[in-house]
Amino acid sequence: MKKNILIIPGDGIGQEVTTWGKQVLEAIAQKYGHSFAFDDAIMGHTAIEATGNPLPDETLEKARNSDAILFGAIGHAKYDNDPSAKVRPEQGLLKIRKELGLYANLRPILLFDELLDASSLKPEVLRGTDILFFRELTGDVYFGEKNRNEDNTFASDLMNYHRYEVERITRKAFEAAQTRSKKLCSVDKANVLETSRLWREVVQEIAPEYPDVETEHMFIDNAAMQLVKNPKKFDVVLTANLFGDILTDEASQIAGSMGMLASASVGDGTGFFEPIHGSAHDIAGQNKANPLASILSAALMLDISFGLQEEAKAVTNAVAETLKAGWRTGDIANAETPADKILGTKEMGEKVLE
Amino acid sequence: MKKNILIIPGDGIGQEVTTWGKQVLEAIAQKYGHSFAFDDAIMGHTAIEATGNPLPDETLEKARNSDAILFGAIGHAKYDNDPSAKVRPEQGLLKIRKELGLYANLRPILLFDELLDASSLKPEVLRGTDILFFRELTGDVYFGEKNRNEDNTFASDLMNYHRYEVERITRKAFEAAQTRSKKLCSVDKANVLETSRLWREVVQEIAPEYPDVETEHMFIDNAAMQLVKNPKKFDVVLTANLFGDILTDEASQIAGSMGMLASASVGDGTGFFEPIHGSAHDIAGQNKANPLASILSAALMLDISFGLQEEAKAVTNAVAETLKAGWRTGDIANAETPADKILGTKEMGEKVLE
Ligand SMILES: CC(C)[C@H](C(=O)O)[C@@H](O)C(=O)O
Ligand SMILES: CC(C)[C@H](C(=O)O)[C@@H](O)C(=O)O
Repeated sequence: MKKNILIIPGDGIGQEVTTWGKQVLEAIAQKYGHSFAFDDAIMGHTAIEATGNPLPDETLEKARNSDAILFGAIGHAKYDNDPSAKVRPEQGLLKIRKELGLYANLRPILLFDELLDASSLKPEVLRGTDILFFRELTGDVYFGEKNRNEDNTFASDLMNYHRYEVERITRKAFEAAQTRSKKLCSVDKANVLETSRLWREVVQEIAPEYPDVETEHMFIDNAAMQLVKNPKKFDVVLTANLFGDILTDEASQIAGSMGMLASASVGDGTGFFEPIHGSAHDIAGQNKANPLASILSAALMLDISFGLQEEAKAVTNAVAETLKAGWRTGDIANAETPADKILGTKEMGEKVLE
Repeated sequence: MKKNILIIPGDGIGQEVTTWGKQVLEAIAQKYGHSFAFDDAIMGHTAIEATGNPLPDETLEKARNSDAILFGAIGHAKYDNDPSAKVRPEQGLLKIRKELGLYANLRPILLFDELLDASSLKPEVLRGTDILFFRELTGDVYFGEKNRNEDNTFASDLMNYHRYEVERITRKAFEAAQTRSKKLCSVDKANVLETSRLWREVVQEIAPEYPDVETEHMFIDNAAMQLVKNPKKFDVVLTANLFGDILTDEASQIAGSMGMLASASVGDGTGFFEPIHGSAHDIAGQNKANPLASILSAALMLDISFGLQEEAKAVTNAVAETLKAGWRTGDIANAETPADKILGTKEMGEKVLE
């Protein structure tokens, strides 16, 4: 199989972690006889520094022409603490999602038995948890009109959804539910929001097309609570952009650390694969970041964009083996981890490659 | 002290639980020589059934004329599953918040040592946690203009904030932080939302007026994660209406159960006290609901609206004693709780009264 893969490291630890996602893809290509050609491009703070634009045209052009994209992370504290900044790294990420029509963000909460102890949740609460989030990615209050009045006394963001936007992700989520344990939970705030009422209406209309899937509706406040109380009760979770952002980060604690979670953003064109963690500038360049989320993002790429299930499985297994052998990065170590089992980014990447 | 207290049981388990909040207030009045006069009024589904209006004028009138309000719960599945319903129970609650100017919702996450085991979080993660949420309650996407186009292909809700709305709750939160461990964390999504950027700007402007308080800003997705990972790191948390709704429900798992958490909504007039749990129609009328959140809401009323700190403390102590003696309702029991220690709503209420 011949594929063109674009690597966009982005900001902060993005550079370090994508290095390992890429090396794993190279190792897979060699072992299974595929030919993966790599290119790279800039985005976010890095791109603002170089060109003034968080998503340069050249990056978008390369993205459109690639078969899949491996992305690192975005953001910089400089902008976070300056609410009046007009140009922001995150605009690059939001724009590429919109331009490539990446409307479905899949976030599997994969629980490695070896990491049961790394979580703040009790092992008996966690054991057996297996959740697949479908977060809508191109609508909601993220993309609605923003306003600030002249004398700075008022600000607004429009939260909005079109019916077709809800329909297409709902179908994707139901299809996935059919291949899993046939349970779908749609999360909204229909007791308060009109957008949520449209959302719920659409899910209710589509549900009968998938009679083998059991559908449940839950309010976001309740879902945020249930996810901590009893994560096992969830299987496929379908939700809007903002609620999905919050719930999936919360759910990362189920997997022990954000450093473990990969995500796939898909739509009608090129797929986009990224860890759910952020740019973590505080540890950037110190060989401390956990490369496993980037490596697992590469596995999602093999599976979802290229249909290479065996290759994807090989990567996931390599990660599981490494954990089983006791190797940990700092974020997934605990008080009982022997000091000589705690690795840096590079050493962890090498262990998985072996 | 002479006070007029309005009881609004609302829907579902609201009736059962407020009975016990009220009885505790009566017991306190008797013991400490106060004179509390009680009246009651309807709201929510109950009020829709009786009058067609989730907040009848008479209820609002009584609310305005009372010194404090003890509220139960709101909501009914009938409306939840009917996204096109025009009249909804929740409108009653939202309207009374707006009409009474209850802009600050205080939600203390009070951790009783006896309940450390009832939580899904590890005891060592929980121990020592003490958080006070300040959730803004009269702005945000809850009250902005809602739209649905004619052919039902589009829906929107306006998320908005006025500067003065952010200012007044920010000051309340800083004042509270000064009396506690002098740490305030403001939660927003300033990397995406204009409303959040205004929010952050205002908090940054006001912070220097409280130089003894250490201020931190956190994105909502990160906060939802940190709250599970390391709840101890939070003290006063300040946030907008929607984010506060989500975070406080999530945080209820720290206290072991939603059935334990009370909240106070205050502004410039009458204070409004309610459990954070919902109407739980599935267990309503079965003597299963946990009355402790309503009893603790009564304690908050004594403390915040009437300035009766000693009386409030007496109530909180009675709850702690009851838990120490091993008594539990179903929601806070665990596998090791002896069956004869598990009480119904009524029996639990009576234990606290004793
Ligand atoms: C960086 C930010 C704009 C982004 C989001 O909120 O979508 C991130 O938190 C994510 O979840 O991918
Ligand atoms: C019932 C609902 C409208 C309400 C809210 O979202 O504010 C509730 O969840 C709460 O937190 O008091």
